Amino acid sequence: MSSCVFCAIAEGGAPASRVYEDDDVVAFLDIRPIARGHTLVVPRIHAARLEDLDPASGAAVFRAGQRIARAMSRSELATDGTNLVLNDGRAAFQTVFHTHLHVLPRWTGDRVRMGIGLLRRRPHDPETTAALIRAGLDRLTSEEHP
Amino acid sequence: MSSCVFCAIAEGGAPASRVYEDDDVVAFLDIRPIARGHTLVVPRIHAARLEDLDPASGAAVFRAGQRIARAMSRSELATDGTNLVLNDGRAAFQTVFHTHLHVLPRWTGDRVRMGIGLLRRRPHDPETTAALIRAGLDRLTSEEHP
Repeated sequence: MSSCVFCAIAEGGAPASRVYEDDDVVAFLDIRPIARGHTLVVPRIHAARLEDLDPASGAAVFRAGQRIARAMSRSELATDGTNLVLNDGRAAFQTVFHTHLHVLPRWTGDRVRMGIGLLRRRPHDPETTAALIRAGLDRLTSEEHP
Repeated sequence: MSSCVFCAIAEGGAPASRVYEDDDVVAFLDIRPIARGHTLVVPRIHAARLEDLDPASGAAVFRAGQRIARAMSRSELATDGTNLVLNDGRAAFQTVFHTHLHVLPRWTGDRVRMGIGLLRRRPHDPETTAALIRAGLDRLTSEEHP
């Protein structure tokens, strides 16, 4: 098994609350979320840094992040906005060296809640939360293919 | 002329310190940079929110952001890392409603400098800075096609 935790999740060898996957990427809830629904999108192919990431994989990561953000606004999470954030390098606060995109759900007036979330970083019923996001993705797919 | 400032820049009708452009995107220095080299990548086709952004344009935006980040590390800016950040929606601190990706250069031990930059947001000789990033992009292209 891979020594990289995100590779292990991508390969199915480590548990995670998955919200989305395709041939190029896997998306799952951050185990130390800043907010409910805080999701990470990772490329299946290991790349420590942006320097190592195949641009096609990078595009797939972003595409999935955009889609998950749109799904969250349609889900019971009822988000008002999203921060998509990729921290590349220790200087930029990267902590896991398998490049990943944070999909951070936002709500109007959530600054205090976010500040508390940043300090606590505790999961909020991850299986239910992941199911809500998956339902939002299903809703998005239904809109596109009615 | 467009009433959207980023459309105006993309169309060449408003000034900007450009660092990169292709058929899908334009990248230029933020006029209120948090750090020297702080760049914005915008799709040429207007999209207020992630909801409105064609996924192919979004992928092109990310691809350009990744490339600019790699170029900065090769440039005289000599960055150690990068934050790629897309703020979608007022709740997520979006201020210009033409979706855009921030490419924020980072250096080891820059936290105090970043804090000051976040308060000041003043340009640092933008024409020279843009030229340095363009030179980094040329260096990257030379590596790829020696």
